[in-house]
Amino acid sequence: MKKTFDQLDDFVSALMQHVRQQVLAHLQQPLDIKTKSNSRDLVTNVDRLVEQYYVQAIREFDPVANILGEEGLGDAIDSMVGSVWIVDPIDGTLNFVKQKDQFATMVAYFENGQPRGAWILDVMENELLHGAPEFGVWLNTKKLSAPANLSLVESVVSLSGARLLHNVPGFQAVAGAALGYRVYGSAGISFIRLARGQVGAFMSYLKPWDFAAGQVLCQALGLQVTKFDRKVDDMLSSSLIVAATKNAANDILALTNTSM
Amino acid sequence: MKKTFDQLDDFVSALMQHVRQQVLAHLQQPLDIKTKSNSRDLVTNVDRLVEQYYVQAIREFDPVANILGEEGLGDAIDSMVGSVWIVDPIDGTLNFVKQKDQFATMVAYFENGQPRGAWILDVMENELLHGAPEFGVWLNTKKLSAPANLSLVESVVSLSGARLLHNVPGFQAVAGAALGYRVYGSAGISFIRLARGQVGAFMSYLKPWDFAAGQVLCQALGLQVTKFDRKVDDMLSSSLIVAATKNAANDILALTNTSM
Repeated sequence: MKKTFDQLDDFVSALMQHVRQQVLAHLQQPLDIKTKSNSRDLVTNVDRLVEQYYVQAIREFDPVANILGEEGLGDAIDSMVGSVWIVDPIDGTLNFVKQKDQFATMVAYFENGQPRGAWILDVMENELLHGAPEFGVWLNTKKLSAPANLSLVESVVSLSGARLLHNVPGFQAVAGAALGYRVYGSAGISFIRLARGQVGAFMSYLKPWDFAAGQVLCQALGLQVTKFDRKVDDMLSSSLIVAATKNAANDILALTNTSM
Repeated sequence: MKKTFDQLDDFVSALMQHVRQQVLAHLQQPLDIKTKSNSRDLVTNVDRLVEQYYVQAIREFDPVANILGEEGLGDAIDSMVGSVWIVDPIDGTLNFVKQKDQFATMVAYFENGQPRGAWILDVMENELLHGAPEFGVWLNTKKLSAPANLSLVESVVSLSGARLLHNVPGFQAVAGAALGYRVYGSAGISFIRLARGQVGAFMSYLKPWDFAAGQVLCQALGLQVTKFDRKVDDMLSSSLIVAATKNAANDILALTNTSM
């Protein structure tokens, strides 16, 4: 499949607007909620419906697509060869269920491992962060410039609440060294705030569907994305991840080297 | 001064809309930022301008007003006798400065210690939580009903990031026992989310201007507000405070009894 970024962008933006309408309609009805790995790891009928919708629509658009989705309704993927789509139907499911805001839907698209486009929609605010490495990044129709290169002590940072509480090495040190920290409960919301320069860093343990779109968009904005455990940067392994301005990333890596 | 709640509500709502316009205008310009007690305790020219505006407008509306404000531009108050106004020009100053959203402006009004009205405006979202004990509570023009009486394990809770990080007794226990926790960096935003049922509890160390409006509105909605250190409930002392559904409050007090 050879599509321009504009063609990809039109396709995914329209998909996400449809998803948004589905989600808003479902928020008016009782949700069917199940737990996955533990009582705080939720999945709803809506996560599954949305993933199913993405998979079907992407297969029509790109018949050779390999699709990796959080709910497992796509393909089993162990390589980035060919046309690879990574989708997270609802990121921040606990916020979706209990708060009915501050959740996102995310898509990233790669050709032979090269990012061709990424999309994160804050569903309730209807704010779409979208772009690609050679094209730049937009918030809805506004082109974003690179966020100011703030240091850690100048930055409010977004952290995974669970990792902070259970004191995964580095998290409490970073929280204490930053100007302030926030816990939002959604990677997508955190990436949007990072891209807008509202936070200077985001640190969490993330699965591929949690970080793929955010990593592509952050790198396209000149932000640094580091896999914490320093393995090879691949898109298919879960990882402790720091996405940050260059200065904040250096500060965090120095801190975590001493505290890990 | 004998005013009906509607008269009070008209007056403060109009004041806050004016404050909102002032704040939005100042967000287009560089802020003049100073630190107070420490590097994370900020005050800007806008905090002071807004407090000055409140003080002047309230004195015209209520010539016998005693006004307690965060920036100290009102009166020195040591009693709730007479007409007492408690104002927080910008709650969540770090969010205001670094994120340009998720901050609030707050006013509470008392006659001889009896709450007569309270107002919390999420400035960027233009959402006003307002009401009084005998009248009920509204979000803009929508009357709110009492939030569902969720237990702690059924609730996402909002916590003070600093208290959690420095492990003020009880905070980490509550974070671990809740369904999830969030750190928003603003008491006003937390009270709005509590009133809407998005979080089941809010726990922080608060000064009078941080909690006065929130306490009045939460109690008017049937939520429980407990001063953590179990001193007499007065409106003029800083305190560790839990605002929560009755069930979540009971769960938290049981936990903190054992962990404090």
